[in-house]
Amino acid sequence: MTEKGLLVVVSGFSGAGKGSIMKRILQKYDNYALSISATTRDPRPGEMDGQDYFYKTQKQFEKMIDKDELIEYASYQGNYYGTPKAYVEKQLNSGKDVILEIEVQGATKVKELLPDTVLIFVTPPSAAELRDRLTKRATESADQIRGRLRRAVVEAEYMPTYDYILVNDDLETAVTELDEIVRAEHKKSEESSALITRLTTELKELLKGDETL
Amino acid sequence: MTEKGLLVVVSGFSGAGKGSIMKRILQKYDNYALSISATTRDPRPGEMDGQDYFYKTQKQFEKMIDKDELIEYASYQGNYYGTPKAYVEKQLNSGKDVILEIEVQGATKVKELLPDTVLIFVTPPSAAELRDRLTKRATESADQIRGRLRRAVVEAEYMPTYDYILVNDDLETAVTELDEIVRAEHKKSEESSALITRLTTELKELLKGDETL
Repeated sequence: MTEKGLLVVVSGFSGAGKGSIMKRILQKYDNYALSISATTRDPRPGEMDGQDYFYKTQKQFEKMIDKDELIEYASYQGNYYGTPKAYVEKQLNSGKDVILEIEVQGATKVKELLPDTVLIFVTPPSAAELRDRLTKRATESADQIRGRLRRAVVEAEYMPTYDYILVNDDLETAVTELDEIVRAEHKKSEESSALITRLTTELKELLKGDETL
Repeated sequence: MTEKGLLVVVSGFSGAGKGSIMKRILQKYDNYALSISATTRDPRPGEMDGQDYFYKTQKQFEKMIDKDELIEYASYQGNYYGTPKAYVEKQLNSGKDVILEIEVQGATKVKELLPDTVLIFVTPPSAAELRDRLTKRATESADQIRGRLRRAVVEAEYMPTYDYILVNDDLETAVTELDEIVRAEHKKSEESSALITRLTTELKELLKGDETL
């Protein structure tokens, strides 16, 4: 029997390097799958249904809400975005650890609904480093950067509600550490109840059955 | 400022290989220290005070109990055994992760007193493997082995109260996994409160001070 995977929610400041970590962890280890969101926004050139997003009409999306088929959803700039339960469940049941990249309010909702979820907050080592990374993107105005830093102050208030804080100083180190956290979580006693039951049964059988003992 | 170490309690069935894991983890990584117990039993040839045990008279030991200087203690075959607070605190404050090998009742007491303690239960992959390891010791009678297996049934009842279950199939793997658990525990948000406070302060300073943003 395949051990069920864990649901891992990754949040963090814009500029913390979440995207690079996700991309690298999928390359490096084969036990991870990314959650695919459903959205009502139009596909951009090159995006594929069922790979980048599950594209839905507003009517279809609202039907998913009504039928409780989403773990969480939010509306952003006139479009819905949400996490379909079915896809996540399928991946978890096949033994994959499913990573869901999501902002802080969504993460809180997921944890409430699914308390076994592992919440990880990714941060650069310092605020100065965060500002430098945002500045280097060069595609954003000073106003946009200032907006992201203001948002970071709000997000930082959520950090104590996360299970783990992952400092992304070096990408490879951060990917290894994220994997270590997930590996450790699999060894939690709550995740080991099948093992505990089996050992207890075996020990009792052994004492009962083996006359030479 | 040195980050404070974690107190890690390791328990497990007799024959699970706890001793080998402890020995190897101290060789392999330099962030660990073993807790040294105080005892009223006499030193055996070759044992050294402050290395194998802190040797105490019954009067000295009972004074330690009265002055609340022990994290936990128990009486076994007419002698006291206990864990001195002072030594553990000193190691933790110097940044060492302190490993305390202790049986299940003692582990429960430590967790009650110090809730940040990480409880890890070590087990062989199966009861048959446990029996084989005990049988191979060859120094024990069938009665003694049977006694240890009976004891294992009782200990197994405590497994769900542990934070982690560590299967010791291969020694090197088990040592790596124990270290991964401790590394992950250091990333818990409760352990990261200094980091969270610093980042929040830095972000606010940055927004206040930098006029170019």
